[in-house]
Amino acid sequence: MQLKTYFPILDWGRRYNRQTLTSDLVAAVIVTIMLIPQSLAYALLAGLPPEVGLYASVLPLVAYAIFGTSSALAVGPVAVVSLMTAAAVGRLAAEGTADYASAAILLALLSGAMLTVMGLFRLGFIANFLSHPVISGFITASGIIIATSQVGGLLGIKTEGHTLPQLAMSISENIGTVNWNTLAVGALALALLLWIRLDLKNWLNRFGLPKGVATIIVRAGPVFVVFLTMAWSAVFDLGGKGVALVGQVPQGLPMLSLPSFNADTMQALLLPALIISVIGFVESISVAQTLAAKRRERIDPNQELIGLGASNLAAAIGGGYPVTGGFARSVVNFDAGAATPAAGAFTAIGIAGATLLLTPFLAMLPKATLAATIVLAVLTLVDFSILKRAWNYSKADFAAVAITLVGTLLLGVEVGISLGVGASILVFLYRSSQPHAAVVGQVPGTEHYRNVERHRVDTVPGVLSIRIDESLYFANARYLEDLVTNQVAANPGLTDVVLMCSAVNAIDMSALESLEAIHGRLSDLKVRLHLSEVKGPVMDRLAGTEFLAHLSGQIHLSQHQAMLAIAERRLARPAPGVREHLGVMI
Amino acid sequence: MQLKTYFPILDWGRRYNRQTLTSDLVAAVIVTIMLIPQSLAYALLAGLPPEVGLYASVLPLVAYAIFGTSSALAVGPVAVVSLMTAAAVGRLAAEGTADYASAAILLALLSGAMLTVMGLFRLGFIANFLSHPVISGFITASGIIIATSQVGGLLGIKTEGHTLPQLAMSISENIGTVNWNTLAVGALALALLLWIRLDLKNWLNRFGLPKGVATIIVRAGPVFVVFLTMAWSAVFDLGGKGVALVGQVPQGLPMLSLPSFNADTMQALLLPALIISVIGFVESISVAQTLAAKRRERIDPNQELIGLGASNLAAAIGGGYPVTGGFARSVVNFDAGAATPAAGAFTAIGIAGATLLLTPFLAMLPKATLAATIVLAVLTLVDFSILKRAWNYSKADFAAVAITLVGTLLLGVEVGISLGVGASILVFLYRSSQPHAAVVGQVPGTEHYRNVERHRVDTVPGVLSIRIDESLYFANARYLEDLVTNQVAANPGLTDVVLMCSAVNAIDMSALESLEAIHGRLSDLKVRLHLSEVKGPVMDRLAGTEFLAHLSGQIHLSQHQAMLAIAERRLARPAPGVREHLGVMI
Repeated sequence: MQLKTYFPILDWGRRYNRQTLTSDLVAAVIVTIMLIPQSLAYALLAGLPPEVGLYASVLPLVAYAIFGTSSALAVGPVAVVSLMTAAAVGRLAAEGTADYASAAILLALLSGAMLTVMGLFRLGFIANFLSHPVISGFITASGIIIATSQVGGLLGIKTEGHTLPQLAMSISENIGTVNWNTLAVGALALALLLWIRLDLKNWLNRFGLPKGVATIIVRAGPVFVVFLTMAWSAVFDLGGKGVALVGQVPQGLPMLSLPSFNADTMQALLLPALIISVIGFVESISVAQTLAAKRRERIDPNQELIGLGASNLAAAIGGGYPVTGGFARSVVNFDAGAATPAAGAFTAIGIAGATLLLTPFLAMLPKATLAATIVLAVLTLVDFSILKRAWNYSKADFAAVAITLVGTLLLGVEVGISLGVGASILVFLYRSSQPHAAVVGQVPGTEHYRNVERHRVDTVPGVLSIRIDESLYFANARYLEDLVTNQVAANPGLTDVVLMCSAVNAIDMSALESLEAIHGRLSDLKVRLHLSEVKGPVMDRLAGTEFLAHLSGQIHLSQHQAMLAIAERRLARPAPGVREHLGVMI
Repeated sequence: MQLKTYFPILDWGRRYNRQTLTSDLVAAVIVTIMLIPQSLAYALLAGLPPEVGLYASVLPLVAYAIFGTSSALAVGPVAVVSLMTAAAVGRLAAEGTADYASAAILLALLSGAMLTVMGLFRLGFIANFLSHPVISGFITASGIIIATSQVGGLLGIKTEGHTLPQLAMSISENIGTVNWNTLAVGALALALLLWIRLDLKNWLNRFGLPKGVATIIVRAGPVFVVFLTMAWSAVFDLGGKGVALVGQVPQGLPMLSLPSFNADTMQALLLPALIISVIGFVESISVAQTLAAKRRERIDPNQELIGLGASNLAAAIGGGYPVTGGFARSVVNFDAGAATPAAGAFTAIGIAGATLLLTPFLAMLPKATLAATIVLAVLTLVDFSILKRAWNYSKADFAAVAITLVGTLLLGVEVGISLGVGASILVFLYRSSQPHAAVVGQVPGTEHYRNVERHRVDTVPGVLSIRIDESLYFANARYLEDLVTNQVAANPGLTDVVLMCSAVNAIDMSALESLEAIHGRLSDLKVRLHLSEVKGPVMDRLAGTEFLAHLSGQIHLSQHQAMLAIAERRLARPAPGVREHLGVMI
């Protein structure tokens, strides 16, 4: 049992048959075709030689097939993580150096170790602190930065930087050195890719091709663009005309190796590795769960952490860089019918074959083609509609999106996402430190008590019922004291105060001391303090405290019973002028 | 009106009369006698020349009298803030240098500016994030560190450091160089001070002295010890025998001046200034509110920020260092009958007089006497009982105390308090990310619904009512999805799910998307989703969302009404085997 949890392959492997094999093989072919240009392009985006993208698309996929639980998730290089890799590693080493490549491998190792540990210790909840608005803002900003970073590749000019201002400055400085041949290749590639995405399918359908064949041709489109521009480059000697080409690439797969350790580099990469891990996990788990729900399958988030961790460890051993589950490829994998994680392993075989066969030709491939591939891929990430939806729903959520988006654009990916997470948590803490509270009365004809300001309710003179809409803890303990003190001051002639605790999910020690202070002040004024609707877990905690032992009033199961008990006590010894109001309550 | 808010003196000044004047004068005399040795000692603790303590006890008190709202708060140098000053400034300059003194002044300036800004922008709630357990742990640890730091002064050996291990190491290294004359003075001072505190009053009473006179003599005791050891030092030439003396002190008060600005120093002092400001404010406001409550007076926390801010700005101008309201002196001030903040201004006049008259004599005062004064003062801060109380009440609160206490002892005041605040917030976030939830049923004979596992309640087959005990936000949104999915999976044959939202105080955008996801999954299973007891502020937010527009079930005012509505609908079109259960509900 235990073994099957950690090695899901033992579970689905048993039920593997000819039918699932066929489905997986078909999906693998389609994903392989899609992955070849993407893996080359994303490696360039990460500031690495293009073949590293291929390396990162072999072992990690095999590792995920063993440890992962999603049948559709397509692991490998993805745009956002590539950008984050470039930002993290770019601070430590110059692009193109051996140090740069080994830092990228170390980053994959650290990220893999963190994900695995998080999975083993079931720390997946950490990812919950990335709210949806923060992720949306981050992904949109990343898409804009990535697209901008490719402008240089499309124009044949040098650009630098990982933030929008740096890139814009860099582009404007070098705009005079545009290489027109590069621009021509880039524009053609971009136009073709756009046409393939938007129009090719309809066009093929009009020619009467079966839908399945048309889909495969559309998926293979980008590979066709790669070959076309490669041929153009070879025939017209674009390299000689100053067009940047991929250049000589080592043939075959690299030897398995462990990255070299360097304490300083490792320390500098710890935080980026954590952010990459969490972002990668959140993105993967969202896609995986969405796709799994469509087939009524279940995803185990903690096992997914282990699966992605193993993938990244494999990426480190296999000379790659950080990987995660890609959104677009996973959807394609799902649509193509991938039935088990084995589809990923078959994709790995496909990429390994391509690495052996393709590398001799890659030398002639213009980098502009890959830039065009990236721009097309990331345009789908950019989605400003979240800003409008957040604005309409809540200004706090809007602030989280806006801070993350602007922070990422202006200050970079790591600062941007940290600002977003920090801002969301601060907003939550601030709100809970200034809780909503309501004076409540009885909804006529029911035993239900609601806010006197929002509902037509009956109240009883001399009795103040306050519902506090928050757990009581240190940040709002003093606020509670002020609230009750002010309410009591505004209601002379009180005999009883009832704190309705239906929304109080915890009372910490600071709040307990505030309750004691409130109790003391009310006792001085001869006002009794009651609690109603105290929940089980809170009651467990209060049991045995001095506060409960000395409480002037009582703890009542429900607000209604509190009111009945107070009324009964008054009937027994009525205060002058109160008797006539009791009818309301009973 | 506006003016009176910011200048409370305009309010109480009007009502000032001969009676309040007399009360204030008596209190001022007693506090002045107490403050003279304390101010000298705390300045030494802060690593500053002793006269700086006197300077910090003049202008700040006048400033507080103008801007403060507490009639009893005695502002001036205090032990914990002096320790924090030493820790902050000690990192930037060597003790005894001009840079050290000017950094301390800059620290007071920054702290004053921060407090004033916090007051003007009503940011007093920031102080709420210092929970009671964290403050208790911090104060106890500070007391231990301060007492240990004075061991060197009592033994006549050199010690260094602001953490317990540093101090212990330093003491053990230099224990061989004990000066026996210093030890003798120190031991005598300590013994006398202890006797004065514990026994003198009884002794005087036994001699038949009136209680008031006895109290004044006890308060004056420490000043007597100062004079006694000063005389001993002069007669036996202790300075010549290697006993550290206070030494030549400039006579009179310093010229008013603005501290010199240095951008680097300022940046390094920003965080310490913030921590000192918040700690000082929390300590002051607690004392001020406790004392005000005894006289039914009110303290305005935001105006207190301005009052303490003005005091620290005045300390900076007057050549002092950070000040705040002291616990022990405020209680004495209160007991002595201080009727208005003017008592503080009179104390300032007393200290100014003492500064002019006393300084010639101070040269002969052994520093060991001041060390003994400090040890006696801080022993009251050390209180381990909080550990036991926290352990009994909640392990989370215990963790906060323990982390703060151990962190402060081992890593210093700033790291310690930051760890404590960080840990409390993390615990709160973690808990709210894993909320308690209960399946609820009807308490027989009432309209009240409670946890099926804790109460004997009635439920209806086919209807699942879940009460979620937390606001729904990004950190628990995914948890909610899992919870409902698992509950639904465990209850086949469901027709209706009711989310009882009595404890849901907010629903953010991430949680709204989770609700939509839950709604989608339930709709696929032909299960209707209802909400009950949704609060006004939450309802305001949900109004106009897609979620509400497409909700398969309804929003019900109360859980009971939800159950009634579901029953009615079933009666209209009863499902097989359900009719017989309806009796339970109506």
